[in-house]
Amino acid sequence: MAGNTFGKLFRVTTAGVSHGPGYLCIIDGCPAGLELSVDDLLPDLQRRRPGQSRLTTQRDESDIPEIWSGVFEGRTDGTPIGILFRNTDQRSTDYTDIQEKYRPGHADYTFDAKYGFRDYRGGGRSSARETICRVAAGAVAKKLLARFGIRVLGYVKQIGPVIADIPDPTALTLEDIEATPVRCPNPEAAQQMITLIDAVRKDRDSIGGICELVATGVPPGLGEPVFDKLKADLGKALLSLPAVLGFEYGAGFGVATARGSTNNDVFVPAGSCQGASGVAIQTETNRHGGMLGGISSGMPIVCRVAIKPTSSIPRPQRTVTKHGEPTEILVKGRHDPCLLPRFVPMGEAMMALVLVDHLLRSQISRL
Amino acid sequence: MAGNTFGKLFRVTTAGVSHGPGYLCIIDGCPAGLELSVDDLLPDLQRRRPGQSRLTTQRDESDIPEIWSGVFEGRTDGTPIGILFRNTDQRSTDYTDIQEKYRPGHADYTFDAKYGFRDYRGGGRSSARETICRVAAGAVAKKLLARFGIRVLGYVKQIGPVIADIPDPTALTLEDIEATPVRCPNPEAAQQMITLIDAVRKDRDSIGGICELVATGVPPGLGEPVFDKLKADLGKALLSLPAVLGFEYGAGFGVATARGSTNNDVFVPAGSCQGASGVAIQTETNRHGGMLGGISSGMPIVCRVAIKPTSSIPRPQRTVTKHGEPTEILVKGRHDPCLLPRFVPMGEAMMALVLVDHLLRSQISRL
Amino acid sequence: MAGNTFGKLFRVTTAGVSHGPGYLCIIDGCPAGLELSVDDLLPDLQRRRPGQSRLTTQRDESDIPEIWSGVFEGRTDGTPIGILFRNTDQRSTDYTDIQEKYRPGHADYTFDAKYGFRDYRGGGRSSARETICRVAAGAVAKKLLARFGIRVLGYVKQIGPVIADIPDPTALTLEDIEATPVRCPNPEAAQQMITLIDAVRKDRDSIGGICELVATGVPPGLGEPVFDKLKADLGKALLSLPAVLGFEYGAGFGVATARGSTNNDVFVPAGSCQGASGVAIQTETNRHGGMLGGISSGMPIVCRVAIKPTSSIPRPQRTVTKHGEPTEILVKGRHDPCLLPRFVPMGEAMMALVLVDHLLRSQISRL
Amino acid sequence: MAGNTFGKLFRVTTAGVSHGPGYLCIIDGCPAGLELSVDDLLPDLQRRRPGQSRLTTQRDESDIPEIWSGVFEGRTDGTPIGILFRNTDQRSTDYTDIQEKYRPGHADYTFDAKYGFRDYRGGGRSSARETICRVAAGAVAKKLLARFGIRVLGYVKQIGPVIADIPDPTALTLEDIEATPVRCPNPEAAQQMITLIDAVRKDRDSIGGICELVATGVPPGLGEPVFDKLKADLGKALLSLPAVLGFEYGAGFGVATARGSTNNDVFVPAGSCQGASGVAIQTETNRHGGMLGGISSGMPIVCRVAIKPTSSIPRPQRTVTKHGEPTEILVKGRHDPCLLPRFVPMGEAMMALVLVDHLLRSQISRL
Repeated sequence: MAGNTFGKLFRVTTAGVSHGPGYLCIIDGCPAGLELSVDDLLPDLQRRRPGQSRLTTQRDESDIPEIWSGVFEGRTDGTPIGILFRNTDQRSTDYTDIQEKYRPGHADYTFDAKYGFRDYRGGGRSSARETICRVAAGAVAKKLLARFGIRVLGYVKQIGPVIADIPDPTALTLEDIEATPVRCPNPEAAQQMITLIDAVRKDRDSIGGICELVATGVPPGLGEPVFDKLKADLGKALLSLPAVLGFEYGAGFGVATARGSTNNDVFVPAGSCQGASGVAIQTETNRHGGMLGGISSGMPIVCRVAIKPTSSIPRPQRTVTKHGEPTEILVKGRHDPCLLPRFVPMGEAMMALVLVDHLLRSQISRL
Repeated sequence: MAGNTFGKLFRVTTAGVSHGPGYLCIIDGCPAGLELSVDDLLPDLQRRRPGQSRLTTQRDESDIPEIWSGVFEGRTDGTPIGILFRNTDQRSTDYTDIQEKYRPGHADYTFDAKYGFRDYRGGGRSSARETICRVAAGAVAKKLLARFGIRVLGYVKQIGPVIADIPDPTALTLEDIEATPVRCPNPEAAQQMITLIDAVRKDRDSIGGICELVATGVPPGLGEPVFDKLKADLGKALLSLPAVLGFEYGAGFGVATARGSTNNDVFVPAGSCQGASGVAIQTETNRHGGMLGGISSGMPIVCRVAIKPTSSIPRPQRTVTKHGEPTEILVKGRHDPCLLPRFVPMGEAMMALVLVDHLLRSQISRL
Repeated sequence: MAGNTFGKLFRVTTAGVSHGPGYLCIIDGCPAGLELSVDDLLPDLQRRRPGQSRLTTQRDESDIPEIWSGVFEGRTDGTPIGILFRNTDQRSTDYTDIQEKYRPGHADYTFDAKYGFRDYRGGGRSSARETICRVAAGAVAKKLLARFGIRVLGYVKQIGPVIADIPDPTALTLEDIEATPVRCPNPEAAQQMITLIDAVRKDRDSIGGICELVATGVPPGLGEPVFDKLKADLGKALLSLPAVLGFEYGAGFGVATARGSTNNDVFVPAGSCQGASGVAIQTETNRHGGMLGGISSGMPIVCRVAIKPTSSIPRPQRTVTKHGEPTEILVKGRHDPCLLPRFVPMGEAMMALVLVDHLLRSQISRL
Repeated sequence: MAGNTFGKLFRVTTAGVSHGPGYLCIIDGCPAGLELSVDDLLPDLQRRRPGQSRLTTQRDESDIPEIWSGVFEGRTDGTPIGILFRNTDQRSTDYTDIQEKYRPGHADYTFDAKYGFRDYRGGGRSSARETICRVAAGAVAKKLLARFGIRVLGYVKQIGPVIADIPDPTALTLEDIEATPVRCPNPEAAQQMITLIDAVRKDRDSIGGICELVATGVPPGLGEPVFDKLKADLGKALLSLPAVLGFEYGAGFGVATARGSTNNDVFVPAGSCQGASGVAIQTETNRHGGMLGGISSGMPIVCRVAIKPTSSIPRPQRTVTKHGEPTEILVKGRHDPCLLPRFVPMGEAMMALVLVDHLLRSQISRL
């Protein structure tokens, strides 16, 4: 009950810290019969990896997964998928200072307040390296979703004041997104973002941004009506990622100033029929972000998350020691000046995990 | 697994529809020994009730709970708390039209797509009357939190373009909030909001807004490090409410344009000591909204949710029939032109449920 | 987390005590589209009811369920099924003595030890009247199972020294079982049991026995390999009923003296094919009780539970007061001299709930 | 939802198969602050290990755990405990025959029926080697229980017709049990059991038996009143182990022939006070096996499980191929002629896991 499992039917449980031997990830509930190998996991793990470009930290983590179980003769066999990651580039000496001082913006203090002590090496369990398990599990989820024609894609929508115009997110390809190291599919905005991140890094600072995520091919009917609304589970999934301070879908916070007469999406006939209702129907606009009453409508699911500027910045910052005395800390180590580019695969993974869970739940929601 | 239970240790399960005999609510996991009676539930139920003012719908729902179990001689006794609400003012005839046509912005179509058919009377299970159970359960949660010195308050922060300045949310009292029917504790903004809502209603339209929620007295250490981060569970809880399209905490979406050097909250010594770390510490600012690494920091927890304009507006709207043919619908019934005032107790209830759950979890997180 | 919910996909949550206003039962996860009405619940509720014959207690409980939600136009609609039972014949005055003294064999003392106090009226939450909710939920489960060709039947196998020979349990009909008030389908044994129970009652005593339960039509493949083995979930379900002290399936405790060479059930070709393996296969004998590796084999599932003699007997018994002082108690009220006849529908209900849960789980175990 | 997690607050999730790289075990919910090292796990793992004596199989499994996370500077730190076991002595060639033929008494056929195919190497996920994770997790649970004065011990009560008389199980020490390789603390019976097992092995056969488990120091008040009764969770835990066909506690199946007047355990004053009731009380006898109403009474918890004779015997057995054709199989490999001696630590582990879970639950059951 300490919160290291995600999902109800497609369940991911993880353990591990950044400066121990490595990470364990167990996926329970993946149906048997899905073709799967390490090669399916590598692309997203590579996208999450540090050191991909000058925009991201140069740590050389070993991000090669070992699948220990759950796959037999190339297919999932219904038993739990056990995945391992070994830690290699630990450089513990980089982190000795944080044993005594609380880094601003980090979980050092709250861990001590919760448990009485903490693994102070590299953030311990609160290290973002933990997302390696999520990305691996998300890759399995994506592969399963693909069997049902569902695709999840994320990209950088905003960094600092630079906002990318993306007229039709559903037309994007993975290549569009991967075209630049900043993972913004609008080339002009991408260039501005890169320039901005470079400037921020030179200024020994960091910068925040917004990631947009889009799921296409989602049939109407995913999501449960009351507490486990699809929007609620997506919100939880994405807010469980480090550095996320906000989640919105469809018109999002823009609804605060909207009127019902313009905010409602009008239903119109559609070309093809989806869902148990047996009618061909869609909405003219998508201010509802593909979810009505917390249940997917068949329209693309579109959401956005706000990511704070990296808390670890190469500048001295005021703080206190673990004894409560004022001091200063200079957080060492190699840190991304902007988390957004590497966030994209993490966000996709969490969205995929939610969709798979609800896809399985939808299989048993009616006779 | 159909999502009608909320919480892990303090679990709320509900059933019922707006136009059946009534609602059932079972709270499982409330510790024994809490003084509790129907009188503890009434104030928040009254705040949630329709017909409180001209700003809210004039339906006369009977919102008197019956506690059938779980309380003995004035105290919770450890067994599940069973609560009933009877439906009285059903006026089914108001809703006959929606059997054939899909209301824009509602869950009519998505229910049909999910289950093949639906209880079309008054929204059935997707009716916001379902929140009556949440508010009752939230009142129990609030009473339990109060035993630990924790208080949850919500208020209207924004309606349409009117944004209320609330310099110190932690200084607010329930009376400040209840002073106006719009539940905005800034009197000047409240008056503007009331004027706006009146104008919108006369215009046969509706308007959205933002509700801010604040929890004070929360000790550091609530929340689990990875998937069940406090921020994630708060996000899920609030996004599970009808009409919510966005959630943010602390600096929220503002972090997109922030730099680490100004976004990080600096740790400083504090007057008194909280949590297992045994040190007296706080932050100078609260851009982190009281949560670091998903764990409470001891600072006030501050979050905001975006609520869309009421989908049911007294105007004809284009839509389709359940057979997919274009038509027009005029949604009858009495509907709030702005959901915000009645949303406040719902938001508080969900926040309280999350905090109680994590409070119980924190009791067993260390020896 | 206080244990008032049973099942993972087909979830039953209950509240209520024997001497409060009544009981609440919420079934979450029943697929939409199942024809259901109160009439489906009545037969098993009638079988569970006190006062059916001179063998059972003459209390006149009102066991008429009210379905408040989850059924629309005669079919389950995917939303939670809310069921209510009102208590009518409470006679609280029968129970005043037990406020001060601990009844031997009952949960009075353990409730006080757990919660510090208890609802002393009629056993409160530990009253066997709580099984009314289980039997109602079990009737829904049975109806769903019947859609898949699965049938659950129980009967009295043994009372005291009288053991009924039932050569082929799979050939039994409900009528065979209901032919006598003791619910033993072997007429000769049934008569001996009735005579025995009459003698025991005249002797102001009570007597134990064994109930056997058989599920037929269960396809191979239900049950999960490791912790949620079908045998484990059946064991938990039946042991969660009051007065059950033992559970065994197939050869049961008889395996202690068996050898592998005779205990193994040999596989042989079968007439028809079941399960994903696509082969027609069965076992020659059924010492494995229809489960291998905790997964159903396609053979009938056969298990037995041991039920203690009623703890409430109309004799003075030594005990202590709640202050720990030695005293004597004469438990008043009307109590069955033998629990077995009324246990049968309870046991069937729990078996049905487990099978439905695993049936749903099996729907998502492979692509 | 595929059943690879056990427990609600102290949760154990496992993955792995006998002939893959190894096993993963994640314990989530262990409170921070418990002293723990690999040395705490080794004794029970050694007791579970094959090849301890001529009574057990001579496979040389490597049973050395690696703790990858959750322990920092010698104490659990509140984060999930990740444990790894590597497989070394796989000898895959021993198992090629079982790819085509279904072994009687094993899960080969039911896996195929469930998933459509299976990992046929050494039983795959159904291999009893999976219990290595349970025993490791159980060792952690035992250490936590010891902090609260609770001890769990198991021993062999019966093998074939040899029944050991154990007058006072609560007086036993671990040394008494480990004195003989058969783990029966009655020396005379132990010798007879050893002689019997030797004879059975020479006869190329196997034999079943009964394991008794005793928990002492359990405070009154553990267990939840309705579905999660302590007896129910113990039953599930033990029935989830391979080869278990029956579970009983206290008087067990003996209650079938008992009368209430002699079966009820009389309450009497006790020397010291336990539990929230604040009174010093115990029962004169313990036919209730330490649980009343599914809640611990403070008396020793005593239960028994029936274990079938090993299904793998070194004799040809009739069976069918996976295509349903009659054939014969000679199961190769090294197998225990009697599972009982190695079962003891497995049974203890599962009992410990249940008690720890309920111990944590009891921490939050009253204010």
